[in-house]
Amino acid sequence: MPELSARAHEMPASPIRKLMPYADAAKKRGVRIYHLNIGQPDVETPIEFWNAVRDPALKVLEYSHSAGIESLRRKAVENYRQLGIELELGDLMVTTAGSEALIFAMLCCMNPGDEVIVPEPFYANYNGFAIQAGVKVVPLTTRIEDGFALPPAEEFRKVITPRTRAIVICNPNNPTGTVYSRAQLEALRDIVLEHDLYLFADEVYREFNYTGEHVPSVMQLDGLERHAVMVDSVSKKFSACGARVGFLISRNQELMAAALKFAQARLSAPTLEQIGAESALDAPRAYFDGVREEYMARRDLLVKELRSMDGVLCPDVDGAFYATVRLPIDDGDRFSQWLLESFEHDGETVMLAPAAGFYATPGAGRDEVRIAYVLGCEKLAKAMACLRAALSTYPGRTCEQRVPAAAN
Amino acid sequence: MPELSARAHEMPASPIRKLMPYADAAKKRGVRIYHLNIGQPDVETPIEFWNAVRDPALKVLEYSHSAGIESLRRKAVENYRQLGIELELGDLMVTTAGSEALIFAMLCCMNPGDEVIVPEPFYANYNGFAIQAGVKVVPLTTRIEDGFALPPAEEFRKVITPRTRAIVICNPNNPTGTVYSRAQLEALRDIVLEHDLYLFADEVYREFNYTGEHVPSVMQLDGLERHAVMVDSVSKKFSACGARVGFLISRNQELMAAALKFAQARLSAPTLEQIGAESALDAPRAYFDGVREEYMARRDLLVKELRSMDGVLCPDVDGAFYATVRLPIDDGDRFSQWLLESFEHDGETVMLAPAAGFYATPGAGRDEVRIAYVLGCEKLAKAMACLRAALSTYPGRTCEQRVPAAAN
Repeated sequence: MPELSARAHEMPASPIRKLMPYADAAKKRGVRIYHLNIGQPDVETPIEFWNAVRDPALKVLEYSHSAGIESLRRKAVENYRQLGIELELGDLMVTTAGSEALIFAMLCCMNPGDEVIVPEPFYANYNGFAIQAGVKVVPLTTRIEDGFALPPAEEFRKVITPRTRAIVICNPNNPTGTVYSRAQLEALRDIVLEHDLYLFADEVYREFNYTGEHVPSVMQLDGLERHAVMVDSVSKKFSACGARVGFLISRNQELMAAALKFAQARLSAPTLEQIGAESALDAPRAYFDGVREEYMARRDLLVKELRSMDGVLCPDVDGAFYATVRLPIDDGDRFSQWLLESFEHDGETVMLAPAAGFYATPGAGRDEVRIAYVLGCEKLAKAMACLRAALSTYPGRTCEQRVPAAAN
Repeated sequence: MPELSARAHEMPASPIRKLMPYADAAKKRGVRIYHLNIGQPDVETPIEFWNAVRDPALKVLEYSHSAGIESLRRKAVENYRQLGIELELGDLMVTTAGSEALIFAMLCCMNPGDEVIVPEPFYANYNGFAIQAGVKVVPLTTRIEDGFALPPAEEFRKVITPRTRAIVICNPNNPTGTVYSRAQLEALRDIVLEHDLYLFADEVYREFNYTGEHVPSVMQLDGLERHAVMVDSVSKKFSACGARVGFLISRNQELMAAALKFAQARLSAPTLEQIGAESALDAPRAYFDGVREEYMARRDLLVKELRSMDGVLCPDVDGAFYATVRLPIDDGDRFSQWLLESFEHDGETVMLAPAAGFYATPGAGRDEVRIAYVLGCEKLAKAMACLRAALSTYPGRTCEQRVPAAAN
């Protein structure tokens, strides 16, 4: 029989989804699972989205322009202007979710064998996109003890080689919940300019910033006109993960022209969901304010609970809806599987994402997990009660002290 | 500034879409354009699709399973069974349109530098997918004089090298409208088995078969369990090109497992449009019968008109909704641009796709164009009147005889 390609073997299975069979089995046993393993929010998609896709005048679901429906692009540009990000229409292209935007950026900017530096832990699917583009991911470890802050410039310089073409950041960060400051971003800018690299910024969590301070976009850093590439999406912003509508944004017109050729090859992003997304951009600020308040309440509860558990290290969580925390356990993979296979607390358990899958360095993050706080406070409190109980009985526990009683 | 990648330069602009600026300018001048340049049907998407996506119970647009919504997959498998194509659930994955299915297949089956043989003229975007996968397209020319029939086995053997990994066919064919017979497909099967190659078949036009005979799927050829990969889509079948819902189908489980990893990296295909597609699969056979009758009437009109034009060679058109025809012109690109820039007939003109863009061999198909008969008979007749008038006045005309008056 014909063989598969090397990249088919090299491609990692999703670290988030590989626990699914154990979750399915637990559900079949009647165990209720709190899903803190995936960034699928429970928040309703704005009514503006639904009203648009239900328009009875829609009769033929046609291809859209390869760069996206023009009225959607115009509205997105106007929306960014209101956020202080000045763009021309040609600086923005609609993609099939943020994933495709990042794949296009890698395909356009990097040759096979080139290297991209990514601070780790990082969104695990960057690995998959890099393999798809034949690009090598060079991780730069950030430390939970430092709140996963960006490493200083000298750390970046140590891993830059003649093959380095880009740095990828995610801000606010998935999986850590860290928000990078302007000073950190400006330090990055200097490195990028010094070595003539691209700076790819995944900013899909922009609206989920709990610091009270403005988080600058890479598009707002001076001097990066040819170097900055921003990736955005309606998935998290509008709780519309299934829409697969994203944006590739850059002022580098050669790059945008090349990306359009890749976009033309696949003809268009989903039309109906672009129509919904365009309308969702009309959602009032109150929608985001409400969502942000809800997530801040969840974040507060999560951090308080975690910090009251013995042996747990939970750094500050300033954005997105994730926290990467250290648990008093031998191994996050084993613990997460055990939670589904061998544990229950009042007929319930919790599903987590082992953090090792977010590190490219072998062995890193073994005692860490990523928690997505995408459930309401009541459910989240119950999930934390499960976790607390689990940590006190898990056979691979590394902390001998007893866990205090649940706070609520 | 940082440079773009080699593939960004190598990537071809869409031959179909590059005439768009001239079309836009013509529209601004008030000229009405009959769009025969792109396979965007005017047929209504089935009401079952629209009813499903308008369901008021939809509140949160969530990710779907990376392999697609399970109920959609089950229904698709049942649907293929009714067509005589027996599949297990694991043989089918939902992709973001047929494009993604073919990209996944190339990524999984071929290493960079490997070769894929494609009979030309072929759907131009195969070039883009191949560049994305780092794969070399080796064209095998089919001739308009032979009705674009598949070349005999010895022609394939001549271009097979140690790097050859797959043959790609499209049946019924875009851009030629040719339907390959069982005998032709069985000859291909023998080549594939002899050289242990993959056979990728793009069968998105299955429902558009006007021969009155069954067109076998590659999934119905014995002995190809590990070798055959079928690509399908709801785009043409349900006149839902904007839905971006396709299928990757193979009985090769190693391949399907690898493709799932690529699918997981991009999380999911569009959820809402999968919901619509699942419901569209309930459309009654009468929907397809009605659509087929409509296209046959258009095909009949098109072929009759073209064959009555002096110097035009129009082969038999048995499937899909395209014809690739030879015109008495110097150059299809120049003629197509001239139609938009310098010609009008009663305030109207026609937009065609120059066929050269569907050939990989330089210079091939220069005097051919692809015509998509995606407009109703009344409009199609007017478009043919435009073409007839244009051929009689085009400065680059190569046939000196006068064109007879329009047939209707």
